[in-house]
Amino acid sequence: MVERRLQHSLRRGSPHDLNDSCRYVLSGGGKRLRAVLVLLGCRAVGGRVAQALDAGAAVEIMHNFTLVHDDIMDSAPARRGRPTVHIRWDSNNALLTGDVLLGTAYEVLLQTRRGDLRQQLELFTAALIEVCRGQALDLEFERRRDVSVREYFGMIEKKTARLIAMAVELGGMIGGGTSRQRDALHRYGHYLGRAFQLQDDLLDVVARERELGKTIGGDIIERKRTYLLLTALERARGADRRALEHLLRLPASSPALRAGAGRTRTVAAVTAIYRRYGVLEDTGRLVRRNTDRALDALRTLPPGEGRTMLRWLAERLVGRSS
Amino acid sequence: MVERRLQHSLRRGSPHDLNDSCRYVLSGGGKRLRAVLVLLGCRAVGGRVAQALDAGAAVEIMHNFTLVHDDIMDSAPARRGRPTVHIRWDSNNALLTGDVLLGTAYEVLLQTRRGDLRQQLELFTAALIEVCRGQALDLEFERRRDVSVREYFGMIEKKTARLIAMAVELGGMIGGGTSRQRDALHRYGHYLGRAFQLQDDLLDVVARERELGKTIGGDIIERKRTYLLLTALERARGADRRALEHLLRLPASSPALRAGAGRTRTVAAVTAIYRRYGVLEDTGRLVRRNTDRALDALRTLPPGEGRTMLRWLAERLVGRSS
Repeated sequence: MVERRLQHSLRRGSPHDLNDSCRYVLSGGGKRLRAVLVLLGCRAVGGRVAQALDAGAAVEIMHNFTLVHDDIMDSAPARRGRPTVHIRWDSNNALLTGDVLLGTAYEVLLQTRRGDLRQQLELFTAALIEVCRGQALDLEFERRRDVSVREYFGMIEKKTARLIAMAVELGGMIGGGTSRQRDALHRYGHYLGRAFQLQDDLLDVVARERELGKTIGGDIIERKRTYLLLTALERARGADRRALEHLLRLPASSPALRAGAGRTRTVAAVTAIYRRYGVLEDTGRLVRRNTDRALDALRTLPPGEGRTMLRWLAERLVGRSS
Repeated sequence: MVERRLQHSLRRGSPHDLNDSCRYVLSGGGKRLRAVLVLLGCRAVGGRVAQALDAGAAVEIMHNFTLVHDDIMDSAPARRGRPTVHIRWDSNNALLTGDVLLGTAYEVLLQTRRGDLRQQLELFTAALIEVCRGQALDLEFERRRDVSVREYFGMIEKKTARLIAMAVELGGMIGGGTSRQRDALHRYGHYLGRAFQLQDDLLDVVARERELGKTIGGDIIERKRTYLLLTALERARGADRRALEHLLRLPASSPALRAGAGRTRTVAAVTAIYRRYGVLEDTGRLVRRNTDRALDALRTLPPGEGRTMLRWLAERLVGRSS
């Protein structure tokens, strides 16, 4: 249902390049997690899934808008196994593709015929602004050497958790949930989003390459301020600490970061440091703890299919391998 | 009133850079034409100006979103006498500044408490998407040598006229205008937008530098596909035609385009061609004709302050020198 709604979200029009790139993005697959969360949020408070389909597609389109613009900013060459828009076309077209997708997200959301439209749009728009701020913080962190774990959580709250929390709450709004139920859904989404991002950080190191669909250790090579790296920086001493600080100072052109032996050695060395200081186990534990809090939030919701599937989804995301 | 509303549109939050750049954009002045058009559209159908203030600010913020992103795409160094956002900060921050401004535009529009919110948002969103498409066409035209005058009008309809028509119509919607009145306002905005863009093209050649606030002939040096250039390309013969085609083939680093004597000579030569083929007079006539059509559209509106000011505004824009 979501895929079909996404396919019909784009109107025809000129110019061709921009139409093609918008279609390219929305046909790129992905988990459609955020759309599904809108549908389940609606179901969990007693609404029908079909009522929330437009909103689900809208949140998914907004998410794709952020991906296209983030990929420009990160100079990312590929996404979901395909060239990014700014590579396949160019940066200008990618910029406009993101802008048109964001407009389309609003257009699709405006098709929703249940509940208080103003309230839905306010929730949607506030999340949009926070996601942009989260991305700005993420970029700022890349230029800094003194990012704390606490700041990291502030950033992922904006960049990842906020959109996921908005998705579930928006579903609850459309399904006619009480304000207490909507709060519960928001809390569920908030903790799920944190667990999701921490698991993402972890998978970069512990996943199997074929399942992940990208090279292991990419975050290490890009020196991303992940939970793993920031925690290791807080804990490591002596040679380990110096090794991490050396990594952060390397120029992007360094042989230690280039594909092949240099890269493999760097990833192995950093992973060994993560293991020595218990970073991987602790991250796994934190994923579990946030997931438990998400599950906890579901208790106030009425039992039924929606709640059961939200529970199932949270458990699946913890155990996921890609 | 508009300036005050714009100042209060941005919420505080981290990171600082992004807050600062958003404030920088909205404090940059400009004519605030689009906001004023929303207010006058509301007034012209009997509404109160204050009711449309949020919508006016929203349209102005959306317009500024397009300017920030357009300036990235055009690598424009300055706007309204100040460095552009991507120069003063960097491209990534400029991209996010645009995104946050667009979110803010929706946030501010959602404050409107009169009329049908869904209808207002649909109008606003459709215009947003068209403006992006217009910018994509404009970029496409820069890579092509065979753009027709007809295609030019299709492009400025999307890139300029649509937003202006939306602004006046949105005001009429909020003021409680009938669908006939809203159509009249839309038509007024459409022709005003065309006249406005043609006058912009003309001023690049005929304005006085001090009044325009930028160097004369900038469009010529950038080889922008303006109405002047496209018309001259359709009319010029012999050496004149070859001179124009030569200009389009010049590499950006050519001495003929560099500041100083080369540039002055190029601008003078092209302006002389424009004069030889009556391009400047015809453009002036076309500005006048579109303005007359805009004024014509106002006839179906009830007489009063709003209509009088829309009339006055159209007359002012024809005669403007900057």
